[in-house]
Amino acid sequence: MAEQRSIGAERVEAAAEGAPEGAAGESVRIAAAAPAADHVALHWAAHPRGLAASRFHFVWLRANCRCAECLHPHTWERTIDSYALDPAIRPAEIAAAEEGRALALRWPDGHETRLAAGWLAARDYDGGARRADMRAVRSWDAAALLADPPEHRWEAVTTGDADLRLMLTDLRERGLAIVRGVPPQDGEVERVARRIAFLRETNFGVGFRVENKPDPNNVAYTALELKAHTDLPNRESPPGIQFLHCHRADAAGGESLLVDGFRAAERLRDEAPEAFARLTRTALPFRFVDADWDIRWRAPTIRLDADGDFEEVRYHDALTAPLDVPFEEMGPLYDALRRFTAILREPQMELRLKLQPGDLIAFQNRRVLHGRGAFDPNAGLRKLEGCYVDCDDAWSRLRVLERSAGG
Amino acid sequence: MAEQRSIGAERVEAAAEGAPEGAAGESVRIAAAAPAADHVALHWAAHPRGLAASRFHFVWLRANCRCAECLHPHTWERTIDSYALDPAIRPAEIAAAEEGRALALRWPDGHETRLAAGWLAARDYDGGARRADMRAVRSWDAAALLADPPEHRWEAVTTGDADLRLMLTDLRERGLAIVRGVPPQDGEVERVARRIAFLRETNFGVGFRVENKPDPNNVAYTALELKAHTDLPNRESPPGIQFLHCHRADAAGGESLLVDGFRAAERLRDEAPEAFARLTRTALPFRFVDADWDIRWRAPTIRLDADGDFEEVRYHDALTAPLDVPFEEMGPLYDALRRFTAILREPQMELRLKLQPGDLIAFQNRRVLHGRGAFDPNAGLRKLEGCYVDCDDAWSRLRVLERSAGG
Repeated sequence: MAEQRSIGAERVEAAAEGAPEGAAGESVRIAAAAPAADHVALHWAAHPRGLAASRFHFVWLRANCRCAECLHPHTWERTIDSYALDPAIRPAEIAAAEEGRALALRWPDGHETRLAAGWLAARDYDGGARRADMRAVRSWDAAALLADPPEHRWEAVTTGDADLRLMLTDLRERGLAIVRGVPPQDGEVERVARRIAFLRETNFGVGFRVENKPDPNNVAYTALELKAHTDLPNRESPPGIQFLHCHRADAAGGESLLVDGFRAAERLRDEAPEAFARLTRTALPFRFVDADWDIRWRAPTIRLDADGDFEEVRYHDALTAPLDVPFEEMGPLYDALRRFTAILREPQMELRLKLQPGDLIAFQNRRVLHGRGAFDPNAGLRKLEGCYVDCDDAWSRLRVLERSAGG
Repeated sequence: MAEQRSIGAERVEAAAEGAPEGAAGESVRIAAAAPAADHVALHWAAHPRGLAASRFHFVWLRANCRCAECLHPHTWERTIDSYALDPAIRPAEIAAAEEGRALALRWPDGHETRLAAGWLAARDYDGGARRADMRAVRSWDAAALLADPPEHRWEAVTTGDADLRLMLTDLRERGLAIVRGVPPQDGEVERVARRIAFLRETNFGVGFRVENKPDPNNVAYTALELKAHTDLPNRESPPGIQFLHCHRADAAGGESLLVDGFRAAERLRDEAPEAFARLTRTALPFRFVDADWDIRWRAPTIRLDADGDFEEVRYHDALTAPLDVPFEEMGPLYDALRRFTAILREPQMELRLKLQPGDLIAFQNRRVLHGRGAFDPNAGLRKLEGCYVDCDDAWSRLRVLERSAGG
């Protein structure tokens, strides 16, 4: 990833600091700083979102001092021990400085802190900066996706950073990207994935082939129908992004099936709130067992993060061990799973694609369920090659591309 | 991992099925099967835990049919579509069979299901089988750990499966294992880790060296003190097990520090339940930024699973972005973090080890915090080599070793 190394240290600093020091940041001005018991109220002379005032706690201001002593100048890591600070800490002096472009503080021990007005406005927790920083999710059903298909060309994605950024934006917001024209040869899927980041190894190896095999250890390696599911639910952290690249599609049938699990979860929340709540709080037991492996994990079907946003859908009947909730909960749990399953299988939820040689799909494995129709293994070959990359590393790549592209 | 392949198909089946077909399973007998509205009550003639009766829902019994048509005979995956079953499904016939050793069911469509009494007793969700299957956690403070140190020898662990099993048992239950006598040479830490499973790659590579470097991108690569922390909290799924192997320890200071985060969380729950609850429900923003990467994630300090058990402790002030909870929550959040930090730093909680060349520590990175004292980089070399393996794969290895060792 040599192309990123050329960006300057200022860009890294701006990214690390999230500082809107360009257009938005420059225009922020502090009119006055009014100290209260445990915080200061900053009255804004100019604010990008038109806020009049924002409050910042003294302990927060001390913990987030940006000087080279408190924040390591090379690693951007905090070196001040912020959870050992005196909770009653209070600056000896506090004032707007640089014509309102900064807040200047002097602490009782003489340490000085200076924070840019734009930096403060960008992380104004009193004014909702947290929500503004959350990731974008555009959920879809088949018609919504087809109205604006997330399609990309192999030549563009592998040679141009702008096109790679568009592909990653689709992956992040809609959970799916389709790349056409990928040479149907061994190793090409890994080349595309490595444009994004290193690969995530699993018990199936670094890469894998989906073709019907004798003596399979996985239903994927048969010619059977596969209902839409998420991969490797038996792992604590199933891989984030799955890549599947079609080399051969001679057999009749075997079309691919993709369903946005977040849209299905939204529907369940609206239509059957009790079933939804049950699926968020009940961990199901998953397991994969063969001669070499025995990997088990318990996790809910729909996982919400601490802010109540969707974090994950984990759904794979085939790898679900016998359910083991208490007797009284078993009936309602089956009812909730049946209800969610019915939504997942509504035809308008299902994007059906017959992949042709050269087509590659990449999708968020813990959001977008995938499956395939049965096919006749005697009527021709069907061969896909696949691999995984974690979301952490893919979204990092997107942020770094945006950093290079941005102002 | 050729040694595991030699075990027979019956062993894999027993593991996949969790069937106590040995001692315990053989002695289970059904006296009578009494159908009710949506379930059957099995009255036990003999039961390993002395239960008189257990209830199983009809839909559960149908979904868990073990015949080759409903459960793939090679992959152990369910092929019956259990969430599409009629919720009112009811067997046409139901009876104890084989002198009470099995339950025999015939469904309205003629399909027959036969389930061993021992298999049913082992997953008796009406009788608490779920809790019995949960993982063992033995939390510790420094004295408790030193009273029974989790020490192992390199020769034994690398050549004998029994010793590897003991090491993995310490890692699983106590979150820590110490291995002595590992040749202090490059690559040896990876050899030990690969005895367990494949390595988990991160943005720092497959393996890493901890030594003081010029122009570091991480505080670990300086000579500064490192407060106890968990690694890579800025990733959605930080690596599960960290291995650190000491090659050189000439510098004064630089002793290693280990703290059981689960014990600290138990203490917080007992001593300050409101602070504990706050740390389980408040996601903190973490981030790592350098020229090539920008990896961010939000997660709570203490994460509980759906059953209320500890799943993870994630704690690293240095990589915590400016906190961004709403204004009213900021003071209580700092209070809670300060309280947790104070417990983590109590001397009785801290295991202090001066690693010598040849010592290797392996610990659960999302449970056991690690740190080091400052050292004088001019007084001699300090060099560690490290790598990561995920818990999924380590616990899988342990289960497979237990399968080979078991009856």
